[in-house]
Amino acid sequence: MLLTNQDIKELEKVKRLNIINSITGIKPANLVGTKSASGQTNLAIISSVVHLGSNPALIGFIMRPTGTVPRHTYENIKETGVYTINHVHESFIKQAHYTSAKFDREESEFNAVKLTEEYFDSCTAPFVKESQLKMSLSLVEEVSIKINGTIMLIGEIQQLIIPDEVITEEGHIDLSKLKTAGISGLNSYYGLTHLDTFPYARKEELPDF
Amino acid sequence: MLLTNQDIKELEKVKRLNIINSITGIKPANLVGTKSASGQTNLAIISSVVHLGSNPALIGFIMRPTGTVPRHTYENIKETGVYTINHVHESFIKQAHYTSAKFDREESEFNAVKLTEEYFDSCTAPFVKESQLKMSLSLVEEVSIKINGTIMLIGEIQQLIIPDEVITEEGHIDLSKLKTAGISGLNSYYGLTHLDTFPYARKEELPDF
Repeated sequence: MLLTNQDIKELEKVKRLNIINSITGIKPANLVGTKSASGQTNLAIISSVVHLGSNPALIGFIMRPTGTVPRHTYENIKETGVYTINHVHESFIKQAHYTSAKFDREESEFNAVKLTEEYFDSCTAPFVKESQLKMSLSLVEEVSIKINGTIMLIGEIQQLIIPDEVITEEGHIDLSKLKTAGISGLNSYYGLTHLDTFPYARKEELPDF
Repeated sequence: MLLTNQDIKELEKVKRLNIINSITGIKPANLVGTKSASGQTNLAIISSVVHLGSNPALIGFIMRPTGTVPRHTYENIKETGVYTINHVHESFIKQAHYTSAKFDREESEFNAVKLTEEYFDSCTAPFVKESQLKMSLSLVEEVSIKINGTIMLIGEIQQLIIPDEVITEEGHIDLSKLKTAGISGLNSYYGLTHLDTFPYARKEELPDF
């Protein structure tokens, strides 16, 4: 089917949410861990993490500060300036998904979904112990998207934890071996199978197609 | 292993690129199609497409306007205000990857990698015929990321093409059936297998974990 801009506007709201959240393709499944200045932890699933640069190592993610669920995450990041991003593996997609329920400020999603807080060095933000690839970040820029009031939070990586057995000498990471999950739309979870790895592309070295 | 911010800065450049491009998890594989005002087409693989909102339907992607490869894409979008985003399926990951070679301005990646231009209605930007899920967008906002000079281009969907057989009545799209691919790092491609779909999460209806 071909939907025009007007057709999309006229879709039933939930159907439109499902469709437009699905059409970008597979999204990375990550949990963002935070702690308020008063010590209350929070954990939220996010599917909008995006690489912004490698030197310095910058990672962004999108949120609506006015939404009920990510608001605690946003407030905690603004209060403390630090947060963690943790891969969601196939073994705990259900727990990860249910962090999106609307818990009260004083309820920690860690307890509610039975995931475990973990801390490294002086970082005050909680990591997810069950996650094998995870990082802490310090907030370095907040970008306002005027057209619909969303924001992108940008962090610089402070600590990065990668299991030795999934990374090659060249720095390639095997997501199949990690059993990291992907997300489609708002509530569908996918496993990953490595298909192929190609060399750096040069036009003088094009293969046969 | 645990890498600190300083450890990351001291990594060899290519290894750092590979690592930091991989740690966000799986990334969506899409091709962006553009045409210059003078009629030259361009096609570029992008892994940073992100959902920004459903009403209006807004999609963003990240680029470095100073890079050689995406520069033609950026110039064409600025000239014409329109572009397409096309899912990369497993059947043409190799062609899609090699659009990242540095072709000259007057060379079309469509010809070089043997993918086929397709047009709908009055949209001047080329779609990828081999792609089954694709959309055209009009540029609505350009966001500057100060800390490293990257930009996010935001488009509003004008046309959206989805095969009838992969979408449910509720608007869920089956990426396994579509055989849409994911990307890890700069050059590894992954297939997707549906694991599970969970209901909208309510704290009164938590399942057993």
